[in-house]
Parts: sequence; C-alpha cells; structure tokens
Amino acid sequence: MKNTFGQSVSVTLFGESHGAMIGAVVDGLAPGIPVDEAFIAQQLSLRRSDGVTGTARRESDEFTVCSGVYRGMTTGTPLCILIPNADTHSADYDAIARLPRPGHADYTAQCKYHGWQDPRGGGHFSGRLTAPLVAVGAVAIRALRERGILIGTHLLRCGGVEDRRFTPAAEELNAVNATIFAVLDRSSGEAMRRAITDAAAAGDSVGGILETAVLGLPAGIGEPWFDTVEGVLSHALFSIPAVKGVSFGDAFSMADAPGSAYNDAFTVRDGVIATETNHNGGVNGGITNAMPLVFSCAVKPTPSIYKEQQTVDLSTKEIAALRLKGRHDPAIIHRARVVVDSVTALVLCDLLAQRYGTDWLRGETAWNTD
Amino acid sequence: MKNTFGQSVSVTLFGESHGAMIGAVVDGLAPGIPVDEAFIAQQLSLRRSDGVTGTARRESDEFTVCSGVYRGMTTGTPLCILIPNADTHSADYDAIARLPRPGHADYTAQCKYHGWQDPRGGGHFSGRLTAPLVAVGAVAIRALRERGILIGTHLLRCGGVEDRRFTPAAEELNAVNATIFAVLDRSSGEAMRRAITDAAAAGDSVGGILETAVLGLPAGIGEPWFDTVEGVLSHALFSIPAVKGVSFGDAFSMADAPGSAYNDAFTVRDGVIATETNHNGGVNGGITNAMPLVFSCAVKPTPSIYKEQQTVDLSTKEIAALRLKGRHDPAIIHRARVVVDSVTALVLCDLLAQRYGTDWLRGETAWNTD
Amino acid sequence: MKNTFGQSVSVTLFGESHGAMIGAVVDGLAPGIPVDEAFIAQQLSLRRSDGVTGTARRESDEFTVCSGVYRGMTTGTPLCILIPNADTHSADYDAIARLPRPGHADYTAQCKYHGWQDPRGGGHFSGRLTAPLVAVGAVAIRALRERGILIGTHLLRCGGVEDRRFTPAAEELNAVNATIFAVLDRSSGEAMRRAITDAAAAGDSVGGILETAVLGLPAGIGEPWFDTVEGVLSHALFSIPAVKGVSFGDAFSMADAPGSAYNDAFTVRDGVIATETNHNGGVNGGITNAMPLVFSCAVKPTPSIYKEQQTVDLSTKEIAALRLKGRHDPAIIHRARVVVDSVTALVLCDLLAQRYGTDWLRGETAWNTD
Amino acid sequence: MKNTFGQSVSVTLFGESHGAMIGAVVDGLAPGIPVDEAFIAQQLSLRRSDGVTGTARRESDEFTVCSGVYRGMTTGTPLCILIPNADTHSADYDAIARLPRPGHADYTAQCKYHGWQDPRGGGHFSGRLTAPLVAVGAVAIRALRERGILIGTHLLRCGGVEDRRFTPAAEELNAVNATIFAVLDRSSGEAMRRAITDAAAAGDSVGGILETAVLGLPAGIGEPWFDTVEGVLSHALFSIPAVKGVSFGDAFSMADAPGSAYNDAFTVRDGVIATETNHNGGVNGGITNAMPLVFSCAVKPTPSIYKEQQTVDLSTKEIAALRLKGRHDPAIIHRARVVVDSVTALVLCDLLAQRYGTDWLRGETAWNTD
Repeated sequence: MKNTFGQSVSVTLFGESHGAMIGAVVDGLAPGIPVDEAFIAQQLSLRRSDGVTGTARRESDEFTVCSGVYRGMTTGTPLCILIPNADTHSADYDAIARLPRPGHADYTAQCKYHGWQDPRGGGHFSGRLTAPLVAVGAVAIRALRERGILIGTHLLRCGGVEDRRFTPAAEELNAVNATIFAVLDRSSGEAMRRAITDAAAAGDSVGGILETAVLGLPAGIGEPWFDTVEGVLSHALFSIPAVKGVSFGDAFSMADAPGSAYNDAFTVRDGVIATETNHNGGVNGGITNAMPLVFSCAVKPTPSIYKEQQTVDLSTKEIAALRLKGRHDPAIIHRARVVVDSVTALVLCDLLAQRYGTDWLRGETAWNTD
Repeated sequence: MKNTFGQSVSVTLFGESHGAMIGAVVDGLAPGIPVDEAFIAQQLSLRRSDGVTGTARRESDEFTVCSGVYRGMTTGTPLCILIPNADTHSADYDAIARLPRPGHADYTAQCKYHGWQDPRGGGHFSGRLTAPLVAVGAVAIRALRERGILIGTHLLRCGGVEDRRFTPAAEELNAVNATIFAVLDRSSGEAMRRAITDAAAAGDSVGGILETAVLGLPAGIGEPWFDTVEGVLSHALFSIPAVKGVSFGDAFSMADAPGSAYNDAFTVRDGVIATETNHNGGVNGGITNAMPLVFSCAVKPTPSIYKEQQTVDLSTKEIAALRLKGRHDPAIIHRARVVVDSVTALVLCDLLAQRYGTDWLRGETAWNTD
Repeated sequence: MKNTFGQSVSVTLFGESHGAMIGAVVDGLAPGIPVDEAFIAQQLSLRRSDGVTGTARRESDEFTVCSGVYRGMTTGTPLCILIPNADTHSADYDAIARLPRPGHADYTAQCKYHGWQDPRGGGHFSGRLTAPLVAVGAVAIRALRERGILIGTHLLRCGGVEDRRFTPAAEELNAVNATIFAVLDRSSGEAMRRAITDAAAAGDSVGGILETAVLGLPAGIGEPWFDTVEGVLSHALFSIPAVKGVSFGDAFSMADAPGSAYNDAFTVRDGVIATETNHNGGVNGGITNAMPLVFSCAVKPTPSIYKEQQTVDLSTKEIAALRLKGRHDPAIIHRARVVVDSVTALVLCDLLAQRYGTDWLRGETAWNTD
Repeated sequence: MKNTFGQSVSVTLFGESHGAMIGAVVDGLAPGIPVDEAFIAQQLSLRRSDGVTGTARRESDEFTVCSGVYRGMTTGTPLCILIPNADTHSADYDAIARLPRPGHADYTAQCKYHGWQDPRGGGHFSGRLTAPLVAVGAVAIRALRERGILIGTHLLRCGGVEDRRFTPAAEELNAVNATIFAVLDRSSGEAMRRAITDAAAAGDSVGGILETAVLGLPAGIGEPWFDTVEGVLSHALFSIPAVKGVSFGDAFSMADAPGSAYNDAFTVRDGVIATETNHNGGVNGGITNAMPLVFSCAVKPTPSIYKEQQTVDLSTKEIAALRLKGRHDPAIIHRARVVVDSVTALVLCDLLAQRYGTDWLRGETAWNTD
C-alpha cells in the first residue's frame, strides 16, 4: 500500500522536494467537519523554519484545498490539499547526485529505484513532504477537538537539554500548541535553542526526544493483535523523517523496574475507572484505557551537516569527501513536533472511525439536511 | 484488518488461552519451502517456560500442520498450524473476572467487548497466542535462512543487568539461537537469571530490553512513507505482549549525539558499498541499506505478580485488593525473544515478497515440476 | 491479501480437499452474536450433496467452533471453525496429476505453484473449501437477521429451465431458505432436477444462474469509487468456484433498454423514500438506496464430466485423452446458492461494520456486563 | 480503503465535477516507465464527448503531471496527475439539489453524507472523475505494452445493435484503440450511432455491453480465493459509473450449455499449452491460463434524460416532477470503453507487481544507473 496509510480514514502522500507540487489526500473523514484555512495556515507555520534554528529556505506554504470541501465543510469524499513548491535551488543537488549523503536516503533510493529517482533536494524522501501531512492533519486535529480529544507534543530532550515531562494537563497541551518552540520549561527551551545554534555554528546538527500526550480518548480503541494502538501509531510515526524510536508510557526508562512499580493500580476518579499512575501510557493489551495516551519519539540529529564527511562515488565506487552546500536545518525536532501531532490525529481519526463508524466525527446540521 | 497482518505474506491469529485450540494461518509463503517439524518443535521449546524463570504451567505445544503442506513442503496456499490447549486451570480465573488485574488487558477487554470476552487466562490476549506465531514463524525463519538471511535476538538488559551488544556477527546470532536463555555474555546471563528468581521470590517480576539483528538482508527493501521498514516491523512487534517500545539503531541511546557522530560514513567493503558505523540500524529513509538491521524492543515487567495490588470491582465500582493466584511468569522477556525473531521473519518474508514477487523464496525442483 | 477478504470484518480460508482439516477464521464480528450450532449444521446441510443431483462423496461436515466463542456467544475476537476431512479417495487423483482437467484449475495451479501444489481432489481449489465458508457465514446470516436483514438465493435458470424472479418478498426468501433445492416455482424445480439427472446420465453437467435478494439493508452503505457495494460483493462472489459473471439489477437483461425504462422513479412508501421499480438492484452510485439489493451470479456447468476430453500431458507436452473417474457433481449450482448467501452475509457484515462501527451487530446484555 | 484501490500498485481518486481540480495518484508503478504526455492526451481524447453522441460540455482535459516523474520517466514514487475543471455551469444544479434524479446517486449521496455532499454536477460521483483515471491509466497501458500485454475494448451491443465479438487478435485491438467509436464492424457502428442520436432526439438515452480482451498476459496471475483475477478486476470495474454487470468468458451467454460444451480442451500451440476454445475467458480457478483474458461489462443507459421523470422532494417528501436541464450524454458507453481499458491496465499492473515484484515493469537504463 506504500504511500497510503489507514483503513477507514486513509492518507495518500505525493510529490518531490523540487517538483511542481506536493500534496496529500485524506479519505474517509466524516462529512461536516470544518476546514478552517486559518488553522491550517497556523499549523503550517509551526512546521516552518524560523531561518535561525532551521533552514534558510523560505517556504511560504501557500496551499489549495482542491477537493472534498463544500461551503467550508468536509463533504465526506477525499480531501486533497496541494502545496506548490517555490524557492527551489535545484542546481545545488545536480553535482552530488552520485555522492550519497551519509544518514540520508540517497543511497537506499538508488538501491530501490535503480537511478530513476528524482535526486533534487531528496526528491520524494524530503521532509518537505510533511507540509501537506500537516495541512490535512490540521483538519483531523480540529475534528478531534470538537469531540474533546486534545493532542500536544513538546521537546522532552534536545541537544542534551531536558524539559520536564507532561503531567499531562490540557493547559500544558494548549500552551505548547501555541508556541513555535514547544517546551514546558522556558529555560530548557532557551538552552535547547542555544544547543541548536551552537551546532549550526559548528556545521553540525542535533536531535532529541519528543513527548506526545493525547487527552480525552475513549477506552476500548485498538485491537489485541497487530492493530494495537501502539502498532498502528508507531507504523505511521516512523514515516516522519528522522524518527528512529517510538516508546509508549515508560517503556525504555523503566525497563529495569519491577512489575510492582510498573503496574498501574486501578482507582475510581469522578465516578470513572482510572489508574493511579500511567506507566503504560494509556494502553493495555493494545487497547486504550481512557487514561492519557503518552508516547515518545526519538528524533535523530539532522543528517545534513556542513562538516566534511566520507562517502562513496556511486559511479567509480571510490571513497570521496563530501561537503554539503545549500540550506539545511541544524535541527528538525522542533519542526517535527507538529508533524507528530498531525500523524497522530490522522491515525486516531482512523481508529475511531473503525470503532464507531464513519459518521462519528460528522457535523450535525448540513445545508441540505435530511 | 485486526488479527491479520501483512500484505503479500500475511498472518492470521486465533484462539484463547483456555479454549480448545489456538492457531495461526500464514498465507502467501512461496511454494517449495521445507516445513521442518523438528525445527518448529525446537523453536517452540525456546518459547516454553523452564518452570523456574517462567510459569509452572506445562505446555507441551503439540502442534498439527493442518494445511498448506504437501510431501513436507509448502504448497503456496495458506499454511495453518494448530496447537491444542492442555493443562488449563480455568477455575482460577472465574473468581476474578470482575477484578481487573493492573497492567493487564482485563479492563480494556471489558471496555472493548462489553463483557462478552473470554476471561479465562486472559482469553485472546494471552501470551499463549504467541505459540502458533512461533510455529509459523519457524517456517519463515527457515525460508529466509535458505536465502542467507539470519535473525537473532538476545537480552540486552534484564532486571538491571546489561549484556554486551551484538557486533553483530553470524556466530553470535547462531549462538544465541541455540540457547534457551539468550545472552552473549554468560555471566550477564547468570546475573539476569538471579534477578528473575529474586523477583519471583519477592512475588514480583522483571522486564528488560531485547536487541535483534538481521544479517543478509538485501538493500532496497521498504518504502519511503508509511511502509518504512521501521514502521512495518514496529507495527507487528508491538503485538507481542509487553513490548512497549521499539527503536532502530541507536535511536534513544544517541538522542543527544550530534549529526557528525550519528551519520554513518559510506565506505566500500569487499567491493560492496557499506557504512563504517551502523547508528541508523541498517535503514535510511525507511529502506534497507544492506547493513545489518538492528533494533531493540523494550519489554515491560510481567504484569502478573503475587504482591497485593489495588484494583476496582467492575460491578460495584469500589476499590478492592487483589491477590493473584495461579501460575505466572516472573519474567517473559527470555521467552519473548523467539517471538520477536518469528514476527521479524514473517514481516521480512512479506517485505521481500512485495519487492521481489511471490516466488522469490520458493524451492526449485518440485515433485511435479513444470 | 490473497486468502483473506474484508476490512472491518474479514474472512481467512485454509485447507485442501484431502488434507487433515479445512477451516475459516472470521474476524471483526461484534461480540454477543449467538453461535447457533444447530443453525450452522442446517446451513451446511443445504450445501451437501443429495447423492443424486450431486457427488456420491458423503461429507458429514462435522465441525468444531474452536475459538472466538464463550458461553455460546461471539466474544468479538477471531472465530475459527474447523471441519475435518473424511471419506477421501486420494488414489483416484494420483494417476492424473500430470493430465490437467479441462475447465479446472489443475493447469493454472501448475503455472502458479510450479508443481508444489497438492493435487488431490483439486487441493486448495476444491469446492470443499466452501464448507467452512458456509459455517462462518451462518453466524453472519444469523447476526444480520437479528437486525432485520434477510438474504435469500434461488436458481433462476438451470439446464435451460427458468424459475420466476423474486418479487422479492420476505416469504419467498424464507421459503427458499428452507428447501434444499431452491426454486420459487415447484414445477421449474422438477424440470431442473430432471435436466441435472439427464446430464448425469450422459456423463455431462449443467450450470445456470442464481438470483439473490437482500431485504432490510439500510440506505447509505458503500462507497462512490472502488468500494462500491457492487464492487466489494462481486470481488467476494467470484471466489465461489464456477461463478463467472455477476450482475446487479437488470444489468445484462436490460442492456438495450432506454434510460426512461431503466431509471427507477422515486416515490414515497409508508413515509419512506423508495423507488417505483428496482432495475438498479438497490444500488445507485455504488451505495445502497434501501430498496432490495438484487443480483445474479452466472454459474458455469461443473467442469468434472465423465465424457472423454482432450488434454495435454504436462511432462511430455503431448495431447492425451482424459476420462475422469471418481465421484463428481453433475451440477453444483443448487449447492452453490447457500455459499452465495454466506459470502453475501459476510460482506454485508463488513460493510455495515465499516459504516456503523464494530459494535453495530453486538448483543446487548453480556454475562459480565459493564 | 474507499477511494483507493490496489495493493502493490494502487490508485487514489479525488475531486468533484465542479471543484477546482480533480486528480488521481497512482503509487507503486515501477521506475523507468515512459510518461508520454502525447499518449495521455490521446487517451483522454477517446474519453471526450464529440458533442453529438455525448454531452455538449466541452472539456479540454488539460492535465499536469505533478509528481512521480523525472526526465520524462516514472521515478517509482507516487505519480499524481491533476486536471483543472473548466466550463462548469454550477447554477444549473442548485435548483435541483433537493430533487434527486432517478438512476443517479443524488439520493444515496444524501443518505450517506447527510446533506454535506457537493451536489454540483454529481460532485464526487461524476463521470468526470474518470478523466484522471484515464490519464494515469495511460501510463499503465503504455508500461504493459512494453511487456507485450495489449488491451482493447469495443461496443459489443448498444441501443439494440450488435457488433461481432473479438477473435481476439492484436490487429482488432489496435484497430479499436485507434478509433473514437470502438466497433469491429463499421456498419454496426453506424447503426449504434443512429440509435444514440435517435435517443438524444427523444430526450432519452441508451446503454449496452462492452467487450474487453487482453492479450499477452502470462499464466499464473491471480489467487484461488478472494483475489481471483475475476474478483479483483470486477471490484475495480464496478467503480466505472453505469457498469452494472461483469462477466468473464461466456458466463451469462452459455449458462444453459452442458459442461462438455463449456470446458476448454487443452492443446499445444507453437510449443505452448493452450486451449482449443476460450469459454472460460482466460481464467481457471481465479488464475490466468495465458489464453486471452476476455470479459464483458453491462453499461446501463445514461440516467440523465430530458424526459419528465417522477421524483420526491427531499424537504417535503412529496412527489414532484423533474425535468433535467443542462448538458447530458445520451450515451456514455462509447466514452466508457477507454475507462475500462484504463482500469484494467491499472489492475493488471497491480497483479503483475504482486506476482513478479515491484521491478517487473521497470525500464532498464536510468540516467543515474547503478
């Protein structure tokens, strides 16, 4: 199924970094969901580089909602959002088409596509493809919010600096969603930014860990085998360029803990069954338990660095030195967090539609109501 | 798709811990692959409890290959392996059907199935279901080996004890595959076993981290978006009970490293393009690069512990104390590693069949050759 | 996905005609649906040969519900039904493994499986595999009936004899569902039976056309593109051995009619929007309109005939004469109709679950109700 | 999966009749396939109305290949083709949004989307959506041709007039592919055209039957159950607006024949196993046998007619008279045939890629060859 993901709600991604247009189609969204172009633009702005902690490439991210919307609301048929590419410097890449960049997909693209791939700016592998994902994800985020489901992500670690963990509380999620550099502790954020600009100054890059929380998710979502919430979410999250690890609750951090410390004791809160702690991150046996869904993504440092690196010339099979030119991000983790939110929202819309049917997220009163 | 996973090669799982039979169907395997019952039995023995570091429940794991095989070889049609359940003590569970065990799926099963689920021994959620997965996985492991693809998993951490990492070398993989308690360093293994028996003595349990390596995988497998090797593998791996995190290469451990340390420089080894290091775990841009595929699974401590725990009575919604009886594992990580190998093998057969077609793994000379 | 079909409710089929066991797994059925073994047995009896108009092979169709059921009701986890094979005469087939039977899958199996296939009794291609399909289909038929959805199929044509068409009325469907030779007009049925026994006497076989009606299906099921009701149903129906054509409403019979005759005028009946006629068979634009769903399946004559036929020896590539021995059906159309009902029921359960969610068909009061 | 179809090669469709743009994404096509814009334009011209036998709406079908192509060849990543809408008269439809047109999807769209659907020109249900399907299908047709696989479709019946059947021979297929009104017998074509213009003059419409043949398909494609060639093809073909029946070989026409007449005797032709006749249409047991794949689609008469029709006002639930205005086709069958070819080509690319892997259709020498 390749570039399409999801069962009841699915996303298809297309385009290349330096092609005419990139886009995403999301299908299966309920009818009557507001398609709020201002909110889409705002979400795209969270993904955009500030030019200091990210690439100097200026992306205006003008977008066109070209199908699936009528009178400002989803129709229930496929929603396609297109983003034209602009400010591309293709000449930068031609010289290096045979010198694969370490840590990038240049060499694996050559293995898979046998030389037919579009090499300009990483082609279809470019992080640029996450822009349409954020655009359609914005519609999903908005739809979930109408049902009381709130998603937020912050930088838990970056460049050796740690932020405090989510409690998680709705205020925290709203707060990080409103800032371009998403941290809970302002001083951590400043230290992270410094780590990024220091790396940039050294011609290097940094990575880190993103922590995501989802509030308001009903219990009973997910399957015992294969389509576990963890499995489906991680499947999609690993598409986000540079994500190399996904962990739910306290997976890696409590690997040495005894069961008595890891098990979450049941309790009753406001008449509802809950757990005292949340080491399992809101999922037991692959299925949500109505506690906050909490997970972390390890984001590797941006592979594009200015330091000289060793590579191999694909035509001569001789070792060569590589010095990247062009405009690159010293970190993408702060730009990636809104992509994590978007992918999460799309996956949750899918799981909820599978569970409750295709109408669960729909708006009530249509212009042509039956 | 729920309890079925895979596209060109797919697996369907069915059964409950205390039902008549459990089983798995694997479909899409090439014809002419040996179905070696002795090897299946051996793989099942690696999953079985020794009665000391695992549950006292004795499972003989008698199995029947009931379809898809003719004259000892796969036919190319669905292969079903059945395992009858034996030595079940259902009475142990009836009393606690309304007292969900912390860390288990009892409560989420209730939310999802509204009280219709089979509660005996965890029902369909039971780790027992991994037995047929190991049985069909053995056929996939065997098929891959014929094509020079070797899989191995060991306990990288358990109960606070660390093993050394895979180099990885074929000898290491063969060595761990031949032992019931898979570690590279014998003294680490002894310390881990002690940690497990200590936890058992305290009525508690332990978890840890498994490290897996795959050698011999060709470059060019996987997709840039959604069906990345990381995404597809993690999707399946999260089905394994207690797996809560999956990480490729040095994802979480090098989250603070700079790009210059994380990027894997290209080189030429024996005339073939390779990388000097393997921090990316054999995958770039979602696609294999012919370096060893290396990943880790965080396995939480077994939730079944004998210490008293707090739960809620589902009928009265009142807090209650829970003391588990029955036979439980103080650790399952050492039993889970062969499940990881099996799931990995099945997923790789699928990805290879998608890439090279349904005949790639087939045997050459049939009894009725065309 | 091969031997698995369906999205929210899926079916997996396995086994061979002369293997130890054949079976089907149905996954995604709601919990709390009665699994009525008497009804399953009755449905299987409709598929069984009477020994006169069908094969002399006596199939007892003993079945075991081996998973997914607790206290007589579905649990919501995969339901597997197994049927052991009995009364197999494998020796009949060994001699002809290299002489493909015209009209059968022997030759295409050889092309696909390169000689590794199980040739005994058609192996995995055998119509015998429809027995487990009928068994799991019975659970789906029963579940739909609880929601007021009724399915019925009769022989519209067979051996040159025509039955009258369905009105369709519930009484007609109930009537044909209660008879082993499903026709509306008794005298047509007698003539059809004579055509079958005449063909048998001549060492030949006959085919025909089945007409199916579904009452009570809500409007709004299906998708505009690709997953149209027609597309999804036909996809599954073409799996039934010998089905070579599927047509909805008056597709082929009114191919020459003008639009003014074919269009179904809207009207209001009992306060509900309906159509005056039903030439479109209950589907417009791929989506149900709440009129009866009506379709026909063309069933080719059984390819197993006793008359001498021309074939090619696969080893010598020389033309050879073939005279079938063994026990074969002079017609299967009357046995196929319950398979059509079963497949239809399973597909409708899937489409309804996609539309209304996985709980739509579930029973209300569980033994362990939340 | 809704508006996406296919497994190894998949197609996603989006857009509405009067939206800004419609488009299709095809994913999984091998790299190195020529994307010949002149051929795409030519295929689109076969779908276009001549203004006499079809609608007066003039569609220029300007298209943009916006992704998946580099230097004129496929890259192996998703290929998206966009077609802007032009010459739309939306005002024609506003008045009738509550008066569903008989035979159309207006009422079922209302049932499914609850009034949120785009009603202009049929919205997402419009036959206009087949334009991007033809555009991407042209790339598939071209790729198959390079591998010696040839597809052709002609009007077997239309308005009561019959054409002769395909032999089928390559010359016949090439001949019909080069004409806008695809018939084998010129005088039949003239009579059909007269039937269409007569219907138009009467404010009515006509339908018919299309016959398709595919030459050069290898044996061994397809699966025994569910993903039979018949099942997968029919699933996709029923998406084509107005297709209501699909039949392989002589399904409906030989329903009364005895098995001895229907079975295709095996023979050897040019050293290759073949059959003397082809009543099974090139498929046995769901799998191709290397004989021509032959099937027919029943195309209902265009539902848009100018004669007064009875409908129901959705707001008042009162019966109303409907007189369509706007520009409509008195027949679409001659325009639909290239859609059948396109859908067939896309499905065959998928089945071939599943069988032989994703590289089977790829071009040999890339600009950046490995």
